[in-house]
Amino acid sequence: MLTFYYDIMSQPSRAIFQFLKANNIVYKDHPVAIRKGEHKSEWFLKINPMGKLPAINDNGFILTESVAILKYLAVRYVVPDHWYPSDLRLRARVDEYMAWQHMNTRFNAAGLFWKEFMVPQMTGQPLDKATLDKAESELNATLDMLQKMFLKDQPFLCGDNITIADLLAINELMQCLASGRDVTKGRPKLRAWMDRVREKLQPHFDKSVAMLYKLRDMSNSRQQARL
Amino acid sequence: MLTFYYDIMSQPSRAIFQFLKANNIVYKDHPVAIRKGEHKSEWFLKINPMGKLPAINDNGFILTESVAILKYLAVRYVVPDHWYPSDLRLRARVDEYMAWQHMNTRFNAAGLFWKEFMVPQMTGQPLDKATLDKAESELNATLDMLQKMFLKDQPFLCGDNITIADLLAINELMQCLASGRDVTKGRPKLRAWMDRVREKLQPHFDKSVAMLYKLRDMSNSRQQARL
Repeated sequence: MLTFYYDIMSQPSRAIFQFLKANNIVYKDHPVAIRKGEHKSEWFLKINPMGKLPAINDNGFILTESVAILKYLAVRYVVPDHWYPSDLRLRARVDEYMAWQHMNTRFNAAGLFWKEFMVPQMTGQPLDKATLDKAESELNATLDMLQKMFLKDQPFLCGDNITIADLLAINELMQCLASGRDVTKGRPKLRAWMDRVREKLQPHFDKSVAMLYKLRDMSNSRQQARL
Repeated sequence: MLTFYYDIMSQPSRAIFQFLKANNIVYKDHPVAIRKGEHKSEWFLKINPMGKLPAINDNGFILTESVAILKYLAVRYVVPDHWYPSDLRLRARVDEYMAWQHMNTRFNAAGLFWKEFMVPQMTGQPLDKATLDKAESELNATLDMLQKMFLKDQPFLCGDNITIADLLAINELMQCLASGRDVTKGRPKLRAWMDRVREKLQPHFDKSVAMLYKLRDMSNSRQQARL
């Protein structure tokens, strides 16, 4: 049996959740609540010494790192080839994005989410404007590159069909919704890509991001109230 | 024909250089000098819009990101299976390390190299002790985890034989030699691993790190002179 350790509020956790659901893979659900510190508990550190989510246990084979888990699941189970193509060059494009995203989409989108949403939650104070502007400009550079280097004129990041790269990307970018930020604003090509990915993952996609939509609405109401 | 764009002073470039040499893969050598800014030149930005090394061009198929390039080369050419095992679980272990290393070995070793070696080279002044101590402590946490989570009691990071994961790791860790820092000091298990990896990659390994050994000796002489 496959056990899936995750927190639906974590971006890479959601990517794997959506992959499992889209492919009807049967698994044992094991939520680990980050807000309660369960990812740093003794029992979970035996699963992942880094204390990070997600992780899986496939009949005693424990694996961490969302990038590695998605590749493993796509080969381990009978899923359509487009997710992680067996063609050498198509696969290399997916590997390229998944290596690139650590210091780009992931680093900059999660970075801005942290600075814009989490810090004020924890301290009751927004971060200074200069720090936020810098984080926003770094994310913009990543968005430019996502369009120029990966999306180009393709429907999906790595070619003609959805891959595990799109899954990771959409979840990182949507995390910024928590503070009411729509990263596709003024970027119709990115918006169209996001709609295509979302569509491919329904009905489970919207379910998995329900909390984000709620935070977005709360955030927008607060901003309205201030005007 | 395969063209290899690299700078031998870049850690991921060296990992690929060593892989090509260890497997007698024929390629067209195309050094790109970072010190001269060639990686940001117009022609190279057409190869890699990120302006980063290494990159390859395999008969018109351009690929960036060292992690993706190593995986591609290990499948594209006839090389021993141990480099990137076809066995699903063994391969997942390599994928796991190669995902993990971006924000750990790479981030922290290159970070300390930058703060300890590059900044003083550029400014003529060492960084403040608090900043260096923090960087050192972050690298130490990575070294602990390298031993605990990956190496354990295995001869190589991902099992019984050398893989592309060991290649990336040794080059990141050895970069710290430039400022005379031996990250294996007080870590005999890590030292023994490093010796095993180095041995497997000779005679090309020492040739590819010749400049690092030179910088280490200069750094050690300066430190001696200060005593």
